[in-house]
Amino acid sequence: MRIDVAFTPADLAGGEVAGRTVFVIDVLRASTTICAALAHGARGIIPVPSIEEAMRLAQTLDRREVLLAGERHATRIEGFDLGNSPLEMTEAVVHGKTIVMTTTNGTRALQATTGAAAVYLAGGVNLRAAGARAREALDRQGDMLVLCAGREGHFGLDDAYAAGRLILAALAGRRSRRGMNDSALVALDLARRYGPRWLQPLTASRAGQDLVDLGFREDIVYAAQEDHLPVLVQFLDRRLSLVSASLAGANL
Amino acid sequence: MRIDVAFTPADLAGGEVAGRTVFVIDVLRASTTICAALAHGARGIIPVPSIEEAMRLAQTLDRREVLLAGERHATRIEGFDLGNSPLEMTEAVVHGKTIVMTTTNGTRALQATTGAAAVYLAGGVNLRAAGARAREALDRQGDMLVLCAGREGHFGLDDAYAAGRLILAALAGRRSRRGMNDSALVALDLARRYGPRWLQPLTASRAGQDLVDLGFREDIVYAAQEDHLPVLVQFLDRRLSLVSASLAGANL
Repeated sequence: MRIDVAFTPADLAGGEVAGRTVFVIDVLRASTTICAALAHGARGIIPVPSIEEAMRLAQTLDRREVLLAGERHATRIEGFDLGNSPLEMTEAVVHGKTIVMTTTNGTRALQATTGAAAVYLAGGVNLRAAGARAREALDRQGDMLVLCAGREGHFGLDDAYAAGRLILAALAGRRSRRGMNDSALVALDLARRYGPRWLQPLTASRAGQDLVDLGFREDIVYAAQEDHLPVLVQFLDRRLSLVSASLAGANL
Repeated sequence: MRIDVAFTPADLAGGEVAGRTVFVIDVLRASTTICAALAHGARGIIPVPSIEEAMRLAQTLDRREVLLAGERHATRIEGFDLGNSPLEMTEAVVHGKTIVMTTTNGTRALQATTGAAAVYLAGGVNLRAAGARAREALDRQGDMLVLCAGREGHFGLDDAYAAGRLILAALAGRRSRRGMNDSALVALDLARRYGPRWLQPLTASRAGQDLVDLGFREDIVYAAQEDHLPVLVQFLDRRLSLVSASLAGANL
C-alpha cells in the first residue's frame, strides 16, 4: 500500500503524479465552492490560472450559459459574476451554467495533476463520496495521492487536516501506517487530533483567519459541514464535473 | 509574538528570513552530527553545497587540520575522511580540526538563511541549549523562525517534530498559539503527540527508515537522546561553531 500526501504543489516530486489516482484538496475555499456549484446544478467548472484567460475563455462561450467566478486574496475579481464563496453558488444562480473559475491556490493544484490516471476534488462537504472513491483506489491499486493546494505555495493546516480525514475515510478502519509518506503520517495525526470537528482546524488556519478578517466567516462554517453535499467531483479534460449518479452509485 | 516554521527551504516566503533569529533543524543527521563534532572539540564546521567545493576548499586549508565529511543519499562520499554519522565524531578524530562538510539537506537549509540576524543549529541532542536561545529571542524580539531541512526538498516528520519540541522549549509554559503560522501549529501538535519520545517519530520518518535500511540505526538512537550535548551552535560567516562557554552562559 502506498499513500502519499503533498502539502503543496511544490512539495510534489517530479513524476510523482504519473498514472496515479489523485485527490486535490483546497478546503478554503475552492473545493467547497466547486462542490456547492455542482451540487446545485452547474454543468461544469473550468478552472484557469489567470484573470485574462478566464475572460478570453468566456468570450469563446455562449455568454448566457457562462458565469465568471474567482478571487484574488479572497476578494471577488472586478467585473466577474461571482467570487469564490460557496454561499454564492445557489441553484437560482448556477443551475445549467458553465462556470469559468480562477482561484489563487486551487487552480494551481489542479494544473499540477497533469499525467494522473484520475483526479478528484475533495473537501469536507463531500468527504464521504471522495473517501469512498479513495477506498476503492486503495483496494484496486493499493495507491492514492492527496495533493493539498496550500496557501500561496505554503503549508496550510486546513488542507493538511482534510487530507488526514480523507485518508481515514479511505482506510475504513485499517490501522496500518506502513507505506505512508511523512506528510501522510502527519495528516493522519491531525485528523485524529481534531476528530470530525472541522471548524477547529479551519478557524485556526491562516486561510481561515484571513477569511474571518475579510468577513467570510460563514464560508468557513459552510466548509466545516462534513458530508453536507453527496457529490463526487472529477477533473477530466480540464473540466470539473460530477461523476454521474449511476456511475457514482457503481463506484460507491 | 510571531513564531514561524518552514517545513523545507522551499517553504520559505521571499524575504521571510531577513533580520530574524533562525533555527535550522536537520535532526537526521546534520544537526546531530555537527553538535557531536563541536562538543568533541572540532574547531568549526564549514558547510558547502557540493563535493567539488568541499575538495577545493580543503585544498586551500592546512590538510593536517582539516577533515572532509559528507554524504550523498546517507552514504559517505568516496575519498572523504568522514561520512555524516554522529558516531564518527569522536574526540580522537575531530579534536582541533576544522571540518569541511557537505550534506544533502542540511547545507541547503543553512544557505537559505542569508540575511538573517542570527542563525543557530538545533536538534534533539542540544534541545535545551537551542531552546534557551529561542526563548530569549521570543522574550527580546517576540519573534523566531524555525527552518526545517526536510528530505530532498520535501516535508520530513523528523524535523517537523523537532521544530515542535524547540517551540515548546521556547514557550517555556506559555500556552498561547496566537501568532504562529500553520506549520508552527502542526509542529507543536506533533511535539505534544509524541512527547519527549524522539525515537518514535524519528524511526517512523522516511529519513529514519532510510537510515535503518542502510545500517545506521544507531545514529537514530544517538539523535534521539534529548539534551545529550549541552552545546549552542551558531552559523556565522559561513561557519558553524560553538557559542563560547562564557557567552553561552550569559545567554542561557
